[in-house]
Amino acid sequence: MKNKTKPWDGRFEEATDEFVESFTASVTFDQELARYDIEGSIAHATMLRDVGILEVEEANKIFDGLRKIGEQISKGEFNWSVALEDVHMNIERELTELIGETGKKLHTGRSRNDQVATDMRLYLRNSIDKIQDKIREVQLGILDLAEREADTIMPGFTHLQIAQPITFGHHLMAWFEMIFRDHGRFEDCRKRVNISPLGAAALGGTTYPIDRQLTARLLEFDKVCNNSMDAVSDRDFAIEFTGTASILMVHLSRWAEELVLWASPQFNFIDLPDRFCTGSSIMPQKKNPDVAELVRGKSGRVIGSLMALITLMKAQPLAYNKDNQEDKEPLFDSVQTILSCLTAYADMIPAIQAKRDNMFQSALSGYSTATDLADYLVKKGLAFRDAHKVVGKIVKVAIERDLDLGQLHIEELKKHSELIEDDLDLSLEGSVNARHHIGGTAPKAVRAAISAARARISSVS
Amino acid sequence: MKNKTKPWDGRFEEATDEFVESFTASVTFDQELARYDIEGSIAHATMLRDVGILEVEEANKIFDGLRKIGEQISKGEFNWSVALEDVHMNIERELTELIGETGKKLHTGRSRNDQVATDMRLYLRNSIDKIQDKIREVQLGILDLAEREADTIMPGFTHLQIAQPITFGHHLMAWFEMIFRDHGRFEDCRKRVNISPLGAAALGGTTYPIDRQLTARLLEFDKVCNNSMDAVSDRDFAIEFTGTASILMVHLSRWAEELVLWASPQFNFIDLPDRFCTGSSIMPQKKNPDVAELVRGKSGRVIGSLMALITLMKAQPLAYNKDNQEDKEPLFDSVQTILSCLTAYADMIPAIQAKRDNMFQSALSGYSTATDLADYLVKKGLAFRDAHKVVGKIVKVAIERDLDLGQLHIEELKKHSELIEDDLDLSLEGSVNARHHIGGTAPKAVRAAISAARARISSVS
Amino acid sequence: MKNKTKPWDGRFEEATDEFVESFTASVTFDQELARYDIEGSIAHATMLRDVGILEVEEANKIFDGLRKIGEQISKGEFNWSVALEDVHMNIERELTELIGETGKKLHTGRSRNDQVATDMRLYLRNSIDKIQDKIREVQLGILDLAEREADTIMPGFTHLQIAQPITFGHHLMAWFEMIFRDHGRFEDCRKRVNISPLGAAALGGTTYPIDRQLTARLLEFDKVCNNSMDAVSDRDFAIEFTGTASILMVHLSRWAEELVLWASPQFNFIDLPDRFCTGSSIMPQKKNPDVAELVRGKSGRVIGSLMALITLMKAQPLAYNKDNQEDKEPLFDSVQTILSCLTAYADMIPAIQAKRDNMFQSALSGYSTATDLADYLVKKGLAFRDAHKVVGKIVKVAIERDLDLGQLHIEELKKHSELIEDDLDLSLEGSVNARHHIGGTAPKAVRAAISAARARISSVS
Amino acid sequence: MKNKTKPWDGRFEEATDEFVESFTASVTFDQELARYDIEGSIAHATMLRDVGILEVEEANKIFDGLRKIGEQISKGEFNWSVALEDVHMNIERELTELIGETGKKLHTGRSRNDQVATDMRLYLRNSIDKIQDKIREVQLGILDLAEREADTIMPGFTHLQIAQPITFGHHLMAWFEMIFRDHGRFEDCRKRVNISPLGAAALGGTTYPIDRQLTARLLEFDKVCNNSMDAVSDRDFAIEFTGTASILMVHLSRWAEELVLWASPQFNFIDLPDRFCTGSSIMPQKKNPDVAELVRGKSGRVIGSLMALITLMKAQPLAYNKDNQEDKEPLFDSVQTILSCLTAYADMIPAIQAKRDNMFQSALSGYSTATDLADYLVKKGLAFRDAHKVVGKIVKVAIERDLDLGQLHIEELKKHSELIEDDLDLSLEGSVNARHHIGGTAPKAVRAAISAARARISSVS
Repeated sequence: MKNKTKPWDGRFEEATDEFVESFTASVTFDQELARYDIEGSIAHATMLRDVGILEVEEANKIFDGLRKIGEQISKGEFNWSVALEDVHMNIERELTELIGETGKKLHTGRSRNDQVATDMRLYLRNSIDKIQDKIREVQLGILDLAEREADTIMPGFTHLQIAQPITFGHHLMAWFEMIFRDHGRFEDCRKRVNISPLGAAALGGTTYPIDRQLTARLLEFDKVCNNSMDAVSDRDFAIEFTGTASILMVHLSRWAEELVLWASPQFNFIDLPDRFCTGSSIMPQKKNPDVAELVRGKSGRVIGSLMALITLMKAQPLAYNKDNQEDKEPLFDSVQTILSCLTAYADMIPAIQAKRDNMFQSALSGYSTATDLADYLVKKGLAFRDAHKVVGKIVKVAIERDLDLGQLHIEELKKHSELIEDDLDLSLEGSVNARHHIGGTAPKAVRAAISAARARISSVS
Repeated sequence: MKNKTKPWDGRFEEATDEFVESFTASVTFDQELARYDIEGSIAHATMLRDVGILEVEEANKIFDGLRKIGEQISKGEFNWSVALEDVHMNIERELTELIGETGKKLHTGRSRNDQVATDMRLYLRNSIDKIQDKIREVQLGILDLAEREADTIMPGFTHLQIAQPITFGHHLMAWFEMIFRDHGRFEDCRKRVNISPLGAAALGGTTYPIDRQLTARLLEFDKVCNNSMDAVSDRDFAIEFTGTASILMVHLSRWAEELVLWASPQFNFIDLPDRFCTGSSIMPQKKNPDVAELVRGKSGRVIGSLMALITLMKAQPLAYNKDNQEDKEPLFDSVQTILSCLTAYADMIPAIQAKRDNMFQSALSGYSTATDLADYLVKKGLAFRDAHKVVGKIVKVAIERDLDLGQLHIEELKKHSELIEDDLDLSLEGSVNARHHIGGTAPKAVRAAISAARARISSVS
Repeated sequence: MKNKTKPWDGRFEEATDEFVESFTASVTFDQELARYDIEGSIAHATMLRDVGILEVEEANKIFDGLRKIGEQISKGEFNWSVALEDVHMNIERELTELIGETGKKLHTGRSRNDQVATDMRLYLRNSIDKIQDKIREVQLGILDLAEREADTIMPGFTHLQIAQPITFGHHLMAWFEMIFRDHGRFEDCRKRVNISPLGAAALGGTTYPIDRQLTARLLEFDKVCNNSMDAVSDRDFAIEFTGTASILMVHLSRWAEELVLWASPQFNFIDLPDRFCTGSSIMPQKKNPDVAELVRGKSGRVIGSLMALITLMKAQPLAYNKDNQEDKEPLFDSVQTILSCLTAYADMIPAIQAKRDNMFQSALSGYSTATDLADYLVKKGLAFRDAHKVVGKIVKVAIERDLDLGQLHIEELKKHSELIEDDLDLSLEGSVNARHHIGGTAPKAVRAAISAARARISSVS
Repeated sequence: MKNKTKPWDGRFEEATDEFVESFTASVTFDQELARYDIEGSIAHATMLRDVGILEVEEANKIFDGLRKIGEQISKGEFNWSVALEDVHMNIERELTELIGETGKKLHTGRSRNDQVATDMRLYLRNSIDKIQDKIREVQLGILDLAEREADTIMPGFTHLQIAQPITFGHHLMAWFEMIFRDHGRFEDCRKRVNISPLGAAALGGTTYPIDRQLTARLLEFDKVCNNSMDAVSDRDFAIEFTGTASILMVHLSRWAEELVLWASPQFNFIDLPDRFCTGSSIMPQKKNPDVAELVRGKSGRVIGSLMALITLMKAQPLAYNKDNQEDKEPLFDSVQTILSCLTAYADMIPAIQAKRDNMFQSALSGYSTATDLADYLVKKGLAFRDAHKVVGKIVKVAIERDLDLGQLHIEELKKHSELIEDDLDLSLEGSVNARHHIGGTAPKAVRAAISAARARISSVS
């Protein structure tokens, strides 16, 4: 005999298989949406009241019931039932238990298809707001450290070979630019998230005289989805969000790579406070930059979620298909992952201790001022390509004699070009200070960039 | 003995291995950038002249030389050399051949690192403009077809089961919404593309008194990159672009899935003109919707390119690394793929022939108006959940008797609920017309949506 | 003041930050490995005893303690502590609580690096065994259904256009071949999983006189990893496993696509029992093939996990890095996902009800025997390409007259080729029966394939 | 008016659109298959002759024609036509031009669906053979270098922190293990590639009395595909191959990461010959490890191809769909990419110059023998966990005094534990030599591993 419990089983002969019930249920993870489901239901009931579908009293009962349920949930006292499939049905069933027949009227003029799309958008909008706040914290941390290290000279690398001296503050401001773009991308994504699907019902809209603009306004959506079929089947926002999150993670992972390098004894450029490191169960001397490594590793899971969501949507015909239930976990996991990585970095970055002497000594090696020498020759009249050749030969001589460029005697240098005179300055300070144009590595330019960055931040939020 | 030909071999003892030369060269594919490389060089030389690094005459020689090279290239008469590694060196070497020593001065104050970033951004900006134009064409094609089919009734599907009657025009307007978002995403992406890295030089800026704002203006960039290290190492734009392109391809692939379904004899909803189809080498009767299938298949390559680019950048330390050379082919291929898919659709979509009778007949089956019956009961006073149950039972009876809902006699229906009276209208027309709110499937609402869409298009570009 | 609790904090000044502690801890998910961790520790202790590092009594104490912990864990009574980071430290700390100082000796001659690699390989070997069993169940389900439907004629599709009549049993045997390959791939993967890393210690081996062959034997590994650095840093097995799992999911997803199509009223080829379907909260008539849709959707998460793991490992230097902690969740999730999808299919597939009449009627349409007509002409002496042309023209005539091939009068057909005579048989049965070679669609060939498949299955396991 | 040129256009009214023609054509890239297409056709014609479908003379004509075409193609003299769509039709049309009507008989009993599957499998089998040869070369290069550097001491890293001294030969043998597994995976993949689809025809087999075992034998396939629908729709082999290739690329990318690190002045562990490096257009001193960086970057494209192929196949219903045409480019590109990366490494790896002194000096730092000290204490009777704590404190003292472990006076050490006596040996040589068990880092163990590896190689091929 069939055990009748489903809200849709009017036409069914046979009860759902128990394994199938748990296989198809989403309530174990879509509880995350409960708060938004209730918000959405309150807005929907308000609208139903205003257009006359619900009596004022009925609406009030529903409001009370939903608020009670909200409290139960936030206190962890709600009894979630897998047999009721999802967060929506769990809440609706409980509502009917609490307030009786009136509870059954709440679902008038909507479907789970537009309801879940609404919940997801509210959830994601809220998550983006939190993420943007965390990005702001990280940005401020970078600016503080960059300010402290605006004059600190270190080697700049290309191909992980020493290229030219730069300032540490300048390097950090590259990080700022990356994450500033991330903030902008989340902002753009938010525009496309914050649109109301409510009222699309199952796929074609509803026959009730609903007011979609009203529910949108109540839920602080910017506007309504223009097409009901699109409203229930669109998951662009989830892909765009995880794509944006993936770029953010690529950035955090690139910083992690650098932190791991810099903390390595081979570089020895920075010290990370003990509280951000862990040790080894077997090697007593180890102090590992775990946080950075983990962030680098966690890039994989966000990228994986992006691929999961793209694969999910790739060839779905309209409108809603059950496949879409799989949109939630990758999205929730991505939100949580980037929030925790940003939290870790917001604390850790301003606590980075630069080992300025090591950085400076390292910049002295690797012929880092070879470009300056070439530029010097050009300014004396040599064509750039010819100057490049002359310096190449000088570097070769220096390598053969195991000396750095600054260690070659000026008289030795003069042998390679008569343009070289006593005014030649190959100091690291001279090198960085000379790059003082906008975006350049000179401390002066870096300080200007920091000020400008503070202004840009204020103007954005 | 070493064969000296490289612009950087001053310090090298040994010539590049021949295999390594071709393995590391990019000129076979970065030729695509030639046009932008020349544009960028002309702007750079103009700036060098204006700030006094180049004489007016020198600059003029360079302009002439570059223009000649541009012509050679567009005529296919340029001799590309793998030994010269890349598009930049090929053009610079040819310039020196053409105009002598002055050619060697062009590279003053820049590096291939900022040069290639500039080329890529110019290329991508231009590609986005072309893509947006093509998107516009596709949108117009959709609007034309939607207008023609605003009244055409077809079954709307969820779970590929018949859900409710909808209008074909309404379904098509869901497509419009998808690609309208794509247009917006490309617009947002373009903002972050159209920023000038020129002047970042190798990584830290340059010691010459360059004017970065000037070159930016000459090249019609919106602004300059604020940090030189970020300028040469940032490939966000490539990831964001392929991410945006992937979402577009997911849309085109979803449409393809529907076109393939609709063209199948099992649905038989549309006819595609012969010119968009091909046949079989063995089955003489076949007419295959190849274009749609290929578009669906091509989604994979764009998604693959996104993955390639994310993987590429995932843990690169700053600043430029040779890995970045691998950014070009996935980007070029994605641009070309989406342009050709959009071209195919722009032609094909307005040529789709709806088989209206088949669509209508199909909508009559599948109990598509069951929701309307439930809504009817609710309007007569039943709670929605109870109405749902009543209709579920009626559907079960209908299935057992192998009849559709409209085929059950009104007296039969009345047995299931005393609320059912003679005013019950379960016609398809009644069903769609009742969903006339914003975003609803009623022909009236669809026509309004089409008008609004035309207005939105004009206001965007 | 520092709160000393870590097993590695001898050299640390500062306690771990609380957020960092939970950010870097893995115990919330690596509990999954507890059973294998205990197995591995028992083998390790046995070996330590046999080589004389542990006294017999010490070893016995350790065995007792570990078994007690194992029981606590399986009863859910174990107190997991995030402060103790991971499953290994939790168990070791509890062991020392239980049996005192001796517990501290267990970690002699190993490190968490080889320990976790051992746990992962034991877990995965066990999971592969379970998966292979489930694959076997699915295979038997397919064979039963294929046997039942060996004579059932349905249209075979290419490009989702009707191509030729085939038998349903034949179609199902294509499924069998796919999953048979999956079984083989898991078998090959298992060979590379079932190798013992134990004894690699942190990265270079250990100074104790350990016996790696012994622990390998005790844990039923096939052999030992030949290089200690590889042993602790290799995660190929995780990538290979999720790659193999992804191909499996592609198969299950392709079947899902077909099930969804066949269950759609447009095809109406099969009926799925109610217990594998769910309904709609708004449309009372709906019966949705949720299980199939979800399986199709779940392909995304396994593919995402593959990408996560590849990204994770892409450019890690040797040996162990903390990034690797991120290998667990994608792997665990993939195992669980494919096990549940296989479970769902093992039940559902043999319960599929073929609607044979609908299949047959559908095969009659679409000119499915056009190839047979061409073959007929070839056998009468026409070159294949010419025969193809003749039939193409006949089909065109049929389309124009809205008839199927079998509905054209034989006299009509004769007009197109004098080779056509009264012996022409375009029946569906004739068509399928004629394809009786190995791998062909004839019922006879299908029955032979089923027998052979049963034999192949028995010989494999 | 319609321009009749297609081999399938009997039923078409309208010529293919010109853009559509080039959009759907594959001949620009599937030319790569020409050689295999001809091989396959010769085998097919041989079989047609043997079963009596072709006269001996007809078959001979076909053989001659195909061989001539093969020569034209290999000389680059063949005129490929986009209008003829693909490699198959181009060759068949030319055959008919060359030998007349008989050419039209070649396609009897097959379809492009089984033909292209056959070509792909032959191509891939051949590619795997070439790849395995290249892997062998790389393996030999590693073994040579490992032999040369079996005694060279360097720091072993975990978390990029110095962990313990290891030997360079040992590190290299970890590389050997990785690529040895790759070889095995390609071998396993080859088993599933080398199966004949020929005879499956369009999807259901053919009505001609073909002999599939014969063509399989002629083409040196191991067996025939058991199911015709699977034979034409299966692309597992492409996914499995690119999956296997991706793992290989992850390995090569991990080695690249290490090479880049080691060649960096911060590590300065190795020197790469100039012929594998390139310079900078602006920084005259640069010598960049381009080959390694590019290999690391190229991992992205192979991983992208894997993703493209998985996406491609994810939800395709049986049997052949046009989407499958997109299987070729990712596969071809992956083959070519890994062949060229392996070629580059096969040359470069044995040419790596270890800077042994730098490696040794570096291993002296970082407290690399802390584990040895702990082990020493354990052997004197301390429990491992307690020994770990003692050493942790000693390391802290050493850090505070900026000394390495070996620089602390023995008397100082004795203060921390009375177990420390004059027999304490913390030399790097002592440390590595003590790890002499199987898989350990001791030179003795490494030499044994090298010998064993040579034996394993010979036994495999």
